[in-house]
Amino acid sequence: MPTLLLNRLAVKNLIRMSEVITAVEEAFRMCGQGKSNMPSKTYLSLERGDFRAMPAALPGCAGVKWVNVHPGNPSLGLPSIMAVLIYNDPDTGYPLAVMDATEITAYRTGAAAAVASKYLARRNSRTIGIIGAGFQAYTQILAHAELFSGISVNAYDISQTAVDKLVRSLPQFSIRNCPIEEAAASDIVCTLTPSRSPIVKRKWIMPGTHINAVGADAPGKQELEPSILKQAIVVVDDLKQASGSGEINVPIRQGVYTTGEIYGTIAEVVVGRKKGRTDDKVITVFDSTGIAIEDIAVAKLLFEKAQRTGSYPSIDLV
Amino acid sequence: MPTLLLNRLAVKNLIRMSEVITAVEEAFRMCGQGKSNMPSKTYLSLERGDFRAMPAALPGCAGVKWVNVHPGNPSLGLPSIMAVLIYNDPDTGYPLAVMDATEITAYRTGAAAAVASKYLARRNSRTIGIIGAGFQAYTQILAHAELFSGISVNAYDISQTAVDKLVRSLPQFSIRNCPIEEAAASDIVCTLTPSRSPIVKRKWIMPGTHINAVGADAPGKQELEPSILKQAIVVVDDLKQASGSGEINVPIRQGVYTTGEIYGTIAEVVVGRKKGRTDDKVITVFDSTGIAIEDIAVAKLLFEKAQRTGSYPSIDLV
Repeated sequence: MPTLLLNRLAVKNLIRMSEVITAVEEAFRMCGQGKSNMPSKTYLSLERGDFRAMPAALPGCAGVKWVNVHPGNPSLGLPSIMAVLIYNDPDTGYPLAVMDATEITAYRTGAAAAVASKYLARRNSRTIGIIGAGFQAYTQILAHAELFSGISVNAYDISQTAVDKLVRSLPQFSIRNCPIEEAAASDIVCTLTPSRSPIVKRKWIMPGTHINAVGADAPGKQELEPSILKQAIVVVDDLKQASGSGEINVPIRQGVYTTGEIYGTIAEVVVGRKKGRTDDKVITVFDSTGIAIEDIAVAKLLFEKAQRTGSYPSIDLV
Repeated sequence: MPTLLLNRLAVKNLIRMSEVITAVEEAFRMCGQGKSNMPSKTYLSLERGDFRAMPAALPGCAGVKWVNVHPGNPSLGLPSIMAVLIYNDPDTGYPLAVMDATEITAYRTGAAAAVASKYLARRNSRTIGIIGAGFQAYTQILAHAELFSGISVNAYDISQTAVDKLVRSLPQFSIRNCPIEEAAASDIVCTLTPSRSPIVKRKWIMPGTHINAVGADAPGKQELEPSILKQAIVVVDDLKQASGSGEINVPIRQGVYTTGEIYGTIAEVVVGRKKGRTDDKVITVFDSTGIAIEDIAVAKLLFEKAQRTGSYPSIDLV
């Protein structure tokens, strides 16, 4: 039995944001129904970067994503983050596919935020604030555009070049370069920076805003003033990961926020065990750290598409 | 930059037991010198089997082995254990190779036991007792033959067919089919069964014997009567793994053995911080659970060999 090989180009050809959103929402639903299996991420920390092993299983699929974060890579002409995913038959363990997961990571992160916005943002949301116009900004915009029609984007970055590049790369969207306080005053705000101090002020956030806090993914990282969390309904993707390395990790460590204040998980919201947005005034926050079931769900989608087309290479790997 | 693909056939072509032994011994030495990095294995447990993510780094290399154990596979014509290894540049995270690790697992397990025998068995050991003549038996014999000249093998299995197959498959070695008590009365004894009760009796073990206890690799598994451990010098590959899932796990749980009785790790012995065998009478036990630095060390060896030959395929994976 051969193992399918999907490199980054193949993944780019196969991947569609609308399908990724459906797959990620379904993964959250299965998680909420107790049908997922996801041990904690394991970190391998080295001198110049780290690696994370992210295993997970959902009905009909299993696998592991192995992803690095090497901040010095861009100076060497390499991406900071590269990921490979081994996709297995859960019933036999057979490695059905080895695929690039760099694109998967970007797409599923955008999709997870858009799914959170679907349940937590106001239905009539029209403006998206992008804070941090790097790699993640593209998929946040693509994903939200699938679920919110006629959106316009307020984009801020400390680098003017990054915003210019974003505007040029997505000519089909209305993207306006603006100061951070204007981006933060949007209906839906996506924070996508590697910040280690709260760059988004409470006073900029309007009543009824939904915030996707995506940037914080390691201990010490933080983008929002803790007073935002204190007044918001906070939904996390994973309680343990969010508490340890998500947006809430620093406030928890500082004792200004407790895990008891977390409203619930996105899985609980999607499955209906916890209500989503109930009024137009409350501020909601989705603390997204990125979880392995998102990756595995998208891997399943791509594997099955690739199998149907029959035009991708495979090898007798094991 | 391309990613090298080494399938099982390529690994079979490239792998040499003598080189694997050198690589594994060097990995233990680097571990003893504090130069290795190895987080705990992560388990993903499913209905019909489980997967283990085994990340590790040594100087100049990093990676993860993703290996399944599905006991029902043979009835489907598939191996119970299949493994894939992603091999990375530790300085950039780039995935340099994706390789089959099924052969690597078998070879490094044999090599680790042989390295333990080098330091712990009597130098004049001439007989190897094989208890359990399955897949692992082959590499135990190959590895010990590299370090002990003129050995003869006493092989036992509950299945006569398994022993017959072993004898036929390794015609270059003197292998005698015998009862378990005779296999256990060898100079070096390798226990390689999935037993969940002590099948090797204390009374069968001669003074001066070295035992490689390899079979126990999960909670509840056990091959040796605990009285053997109580009277032996016990060396483990990894304190945490051995205590939780190695030969000593059941006696520890039963309260008849404590981690305080462990003599040390094989890394401490190889690096000289703990002495190996000091007299001809003591019984020594190596509790081998299989550790990720063994796999990564062998992956580095194979990657570098494959690169030198230049005749293996590669793809632009990420």
